[in-house]
Amino acid sequence: MDLDLQLATGLIERAKSAASETGVRVIIAVVDPGTNLKAFARMDGAVLGSIDIAIKKARTAALFECNSEDVWEYCKPGAPAPGLELSNGGLAPFGGGIAIKAPNGKLIGALGVSGGSVNQDQTIAQAAVAAIRFNA
Amino acid sequence: MDLDLQLATGLIERAKSAASETGVRVIIAVVDPGTNLKAFARMDGAVLGSIDIAIKKARTAALFECNSEDVWEYCKPGAPAPGLELSNGGLAPFGGGIAIKAPNGKLIGALGVSGGSVNQDQTIAQAAVAAIRFNA
Amino acid sequence: MDLDLQLATGLIERAKSAASETGVRVIIAVVDPGTNLKAFARMDGAVLGSIDIAIKKARTAALFECNSEDVWEYCKPGAPAPGLELSNGGLAPFGGGIAIKAPNGKLIGALGVSGGSVNQDQTIAQAAVAAIRFNA
Amino acid sequence: MDLDLQLATGLIERAKSAASETGVRVIIAVVDPGTNLKAFARMDGAVLGSIDIAIKKARTAALFECNSEDVWEYCKPGAPAPGLELSNGGLAPFGGGIAIKAPNGKLIGALGVSGGSVNQDQTIAQAAVAAIRFNA
Repeated sequence: MDLDLQLATGLIERAKSAASETGVRVIIAVVDPGTNLKAFARMDGAVLGSIDIAIKKARTAALFECNSEDVWEYCKPGAPAPGLELSNGGLAPFGGGIAIKAPNGKLIGALGVSGGSVNQDQTIAQAAVAAIRFNA
Repeated sequence: MDLDLQLATGLIERAKSAASETGVRVIIAVVDPGTNLKAFARMDGAVLGSIDIAIKKARTAALFECNSEDVWEYCKPGAPAPGLELSNGGLAPFGGGIAIKAPNGKLIGALGVSGGSVNQDQTIAQAAVAAIRFNA
Repeated sequence: MDLDLQLATGLIERAKSAASETGVRVIIAVVDPGTNLKAFARMDGAVLGSIDIAIKKARTAALFECNSEDVWEYCKPGAPAPGLELSNGGLAPFGGGIAIKAPNGKLIGALGVSGGSVNQDQTIAQAAVAAIRFNA
Repeated sequence: MDLDLQLATGLIERAKSAASETGVRVIIAVVDPGTNLKAFARMDGAVLGSIDIAIKKARTAALFECNSEDVWEYCKPGAPAPGLELSNGGLAPFGGGIAIKAPNGKLIGALGVSGGSVNQDQTIAQAAVAAIRFNA
């Protein structure tokens, strides 16, 4: 399964719906397994600062094939990789980025959401990804 | 009139349709009047090199409030502003970027298309922008 | 109401006066709602390091539509968005940047002041913004 | 004689007047002999693309202690320093930047103007600099 534009657009639409239900305006970025931008939408009223953060969350998730907040476990104070967050042009090691994997574990892309609180961004991203239907 | 997400998404959809009719796969970027990214879509099969070009075409058009290719008139060999294309983090002074203006002449955003030939990109961008309906 | 050059110049003049009364030399930057530089002045004797800081404070405030120090609440140790300050080319999440909003809440620009202590920069920025007269 | 803020502000005011008389909207940047920004103003209606160009013209002039267009003589096709314009983060080797020197030849700063045609920018910059009165 590839992350085609239809899948990416579906992720954005579901994230927009989830954000609207929550009452926040977010920015949503989708990248492919090579971390290259596939689709992007900025809801009306979302702060400009979240453009870069949404893209960085998606890239962080794709770069390390995990959720963006998991990267923090490696670079937080006392962890073994201090400064990791400075690599790759700057990571966003906090919630809102999700690596999307096929049932066989293969990375097919990543989603980044920014604009609400970290919890809200995370919940919105999870709702969007959870609705992906992988063909049997 | 503002460039809201509905307008930006409409531009992308029309550009995708025009590209499909032409038989090319393009990347489409929409920026606001402050040159900040509003919406973006990469059609399946479009080359990765066009990600940056589509965004730069849109930014070039917004930065100078004209079509991206018009900037070349100022920096082509023998023109009065050699090196202009090196400004603003690098411009894309060739066809495919269009500044979108309200009937009163005010810039409301810009569209950038890349992935086909320059002529194709230009035609696709023009088709997408031409369909905008401004309220009277 | 737009942030025109007259308003931006007035902000700079009032910040200069407030700094002179305090006995410090500051640098003042004004950006528009799209975070693009509108006006800038460096008082004689201000340290060069504050050029970038004044601009970053103004950008931080415009990017997140709040005071620059409010961003620290999200990225300080133990807060939910560690590394947020690395986004957008580097933020300045400490006092001296103020988002300027119209009475209807719409962002019209931001002011950044740097060169004194953080408290002084903040007080100077507040004095400059407080004097804005919005037309009824 | 130093380029103090009073001198820089005077340069900006005269450039604004000259631009208004010409009927164009320009962006004006003043840098010190160390190429660091001293003062900046963007006239209402000037295109955003000229922010970077005005600053680059001033920096180009200060970096080489000459007019910005003189740099082109060294890097134009056939000239001995091809690619010179790529140095220093990108130069603007065309008219509108003027190195300001004291009567003894010492560099005291530079002015950059962008927003009109190259000829207009150059004329506006010259008018602003010509009015400097050096004390005997």
